[in-house]
Amino acid sequence: MTEGHHWHPVPGVQLGPVAAGIRKKERLDLLLMVLAPHTRVGAVFTRNRFCAAPVQVCREHLAQGTPRALVINTGCANAGTGEGGLMDARATCHAVATQLGIAFQSVLPFSTGVILERLPMDRLLAGIAPAHAALSGDCWQEAAQAIMTTDLVPKLASRQISLAGRTVTVTGIAKGSGMIHPNMATMLGFVATDAVVDAAVLQKLTAEAADLSFNRITVDGDTSTNDSFLIVATGQAGHPEITSNASPGYAELRDALFEVSIALAQAIVRDGEGATKFITVRVEEGRDESECQKVAYAIARSPLVKTAFFASDPNLGRILAAVGYAGIDDLQVEKLKLYLDHVLVSEHGGRAQSYEEAAGQEVMKQKDITIRVVLGRGQASTTVWTCDLSYDYVRINADYRS
Amino acid sequence: MTEGHHWHPVPGVQLGPVAAGIRKKERLDLLLMVLAPHTRVGAVFTRNRFCAAPVQVCREHLAQGTPRALVINTGCANAGTGEGGLMDARATCHAVATQLGIAFQSVLPFSTGVILERLPMDRLLAGIAPAHAALSGDCWQEAAQAIMTTDLVPKLASRQISLAGRTVTVTGIAKGSGMIHPNMATMLGFVATDAVVDAAVLQKLTAEAADLSFNRITVDGDTSTNDSFLIVATGQAGHPEITSNASPGYAELRDALFEVSIALAQAIVRDGEGATKFITVRVEEGRDESECQKVAYAIARSPLVKTAFFASDPNLGRILAAVGYAGIDDLQVEKLKLYLDHVLVSEHGGRAQSYEEAAGQEVMKQKDITIRVVLGRGQASTTVWTCDLSYDYVRINADYRS
Repeated sequence: MTEGHHWHPVPGVQLGPVAAGIRKKERLDLLLMVLAPHTRVGAVFTRNRFCAAPVQVCREHLAQGTPRALVINTGCANAGTGEGGLMDARATCHAVATQLGIAFQSVLPFSTGVILERLPMDRLLAGIAPAHAALSGDCWQEAAQAIMTTDLVPKLASRQISLAGRTVTVTGIAKGSGMIHPNMATMLGFVATDAVVDAAVLQKLTAEAADLSFNRITVDGDTSTNDSFLIVATGQAGHPEITSNASPGYAELRDALFEVSIALAQAIVRDGEGATKFITVRVEEGRDESECQKVAYAIARSPLVKTAFFASDPNLGRILAAVGYAGIDDLQVEKLKLYLDHVLVSEHGGRAQSYEEAAGQEVMKQKDITIRVVLGRGQASTTVWTCDLSYDYVRINADYRS
Repeated sequence: MTEGHHWHPVPGVQLGPVAAGIRKKERLDLLLMVLAPHTRVGAVFTRNRFCAAPVQVCREHLAQGTPRALVINTGCANAGTGEGGLMDARATCHAVATQLGIAFQSVLPFSTGVILERLPMDRLLAGIAPAHAALSGDCWQEAAQAIMTTDLVPKLASRQISLAGRTVTVTGIAKGSGMIHPNMATMLGFVATDAVVDAAVLQKLTAEAADLSFNRITVDGDTSTNDSFLIVATGQAGHPEITSNASPGYAELRDALFEVSIALAQAIVRDGEGATKFITVRVEEGRDESECQKVAYAIARSPLVKTAFFASDPNLGRILAAVGYAGIDDLQVEKLKLYLDHVLVSEHGGRAQSYEEAAGQEVMKQKDITIRVVLGRGQASTTVWTCDLSYDYVRINADYRS
């Protein structure tokens, strides 16, 4: 796995990142991604009822044809924009289609940024020809920059595997950082591979990858207006096609896709607005995964827990309170164990006999911390990731539009 | 309605607030409330599975007899304290019972403060005799102070009505201020009246009052370890007993109890940790109250919405995003209208034609703001109250234990 500045281009994918002046001048804010013919696409989108215009258009176009181009802008989410917003998203697709000489339905639009404002169509449309002119397979770093909003760092992950003697690349970019209450962060993720994989298999892998990565930093059903995650497979690697989960190479490709997706999702948490700590919440021994997730999200969403982590204060009763209101009606608190990394903090419904605050304090000072809750009810488990809540979260979100 | 420093004593209720040094020196932190014989008590408690030891003991004692005394400490919640915590709560009741010469089961214990630490029983028990010696009907203000944790101001509300020619008093105190995510605030509320009211009617009125007040600043099912709300009725006002909702005086008493309870609950929001604004979230034209509450709480809990209000920034798309993920699957966003006070912000799924940002900006600058969402689906409505999210929320909760 390579991350950050180390990445591999993906045969069949060309990128055109440009500064179109959509919201601010002289920053990359428009990205054209052109896909080779016969590229397969897997996609998952937000379940928010106020889903943005581009999400609606993406769904329509995916139902009608094979995507050949993605057009992504930052600075304006084109959400809460009604019929006018749909017209804008479609006009963007028309412009790209005309520029590239492809069908209107082959273009998928994506937007992120401020809600309830219309796209500045003049500037956006004026950026399409320059983006076309800029197309290259070698500008993944700039592409990652071009989709940032309040992100402090571009998010890029890449990996290569070998299938049937051929090198297969998986490279992806993502944006998102509004992570205190992760459900409201608009997250965009685009992963590309040159693997040869059946469209139905790819769609299933895309949903599974999202569930193990981006959905672990968000709350089920609590998604933003624009969240979108795509895996595109150009099929240019030349190995025998993966047509089912029994095909040779399936497991290797799946693992590579999952690893790149998880790396991107974790990068979003690490770049959480104002984040100073990366917190893994692991819940074990639940009856089923659903109840493990309830507990994990109750902890991961609690502002009281998150401020305690910011302060490196082992005020761990706040974690127990969150477990208590997570919605498991028949939870027996006497059976529960709470660990901070390897330190047993609580058991038998109270503070563990062996627990000393100095040990908790040591763990709390770290940059990476695992909260582990053992429910003692069954065999299921889950993991989610979150960050702490700092002064800077308030500053960033109070200042976001200014 | 009188609030703050203006209040009426309640015949049959004596209060003994003292500084017992439970967590900090020289501040009122222990309150004894002694009730006349034959006082009726209505009570509702947290549904948190990690409910505190005193809540468990309260439930046991209420099932066994008639309360004659409440003993309330701040500084330590006696929650997450296992069997030892139950012993401490019972020992506190024993000490109060011995001091007053009443039955053990006639004492109800309440605690608020830090979780996962044992009560300092030596200091708590040593405070009971002084609290007994301090008993008076005239120290409601000091009583309100004695139950504060991070509260900046004591919370007290009082009202008098006339029933059958007799003056009836309703006076209450409350504590609580951790209001960004209201579910985690420990809230204690104690309302007393000298009304003559049947025990079953009083219990029903207590549940209804909680639902219209404290439950409107919290999230259903998402309660802290210690939340408790009591109404005690000493029966000393001398009017004919209210035995059903058809009795003369029922409506007047109900309204007085509701008004005092709502005043106390709103005082908690106004004193929210770091709060600079009081926000009323009103949701109208839902199919049922449950879906109105989902939408109201999604807005009221959103850190992105709350930071925008702190910044007086009419970044109102964040409200639409919260409506969108509130969990109403068949919501038609085109039918929804969003108002900020009387300013129509959004309709037809986008920004209202008439909306000008200057008008939104004016409303955002106010200290009291109403967000009104009209769903256009039915006749139900609901109201909840919340506050903004400021730097000070982070400071207070990062520093709470130090």
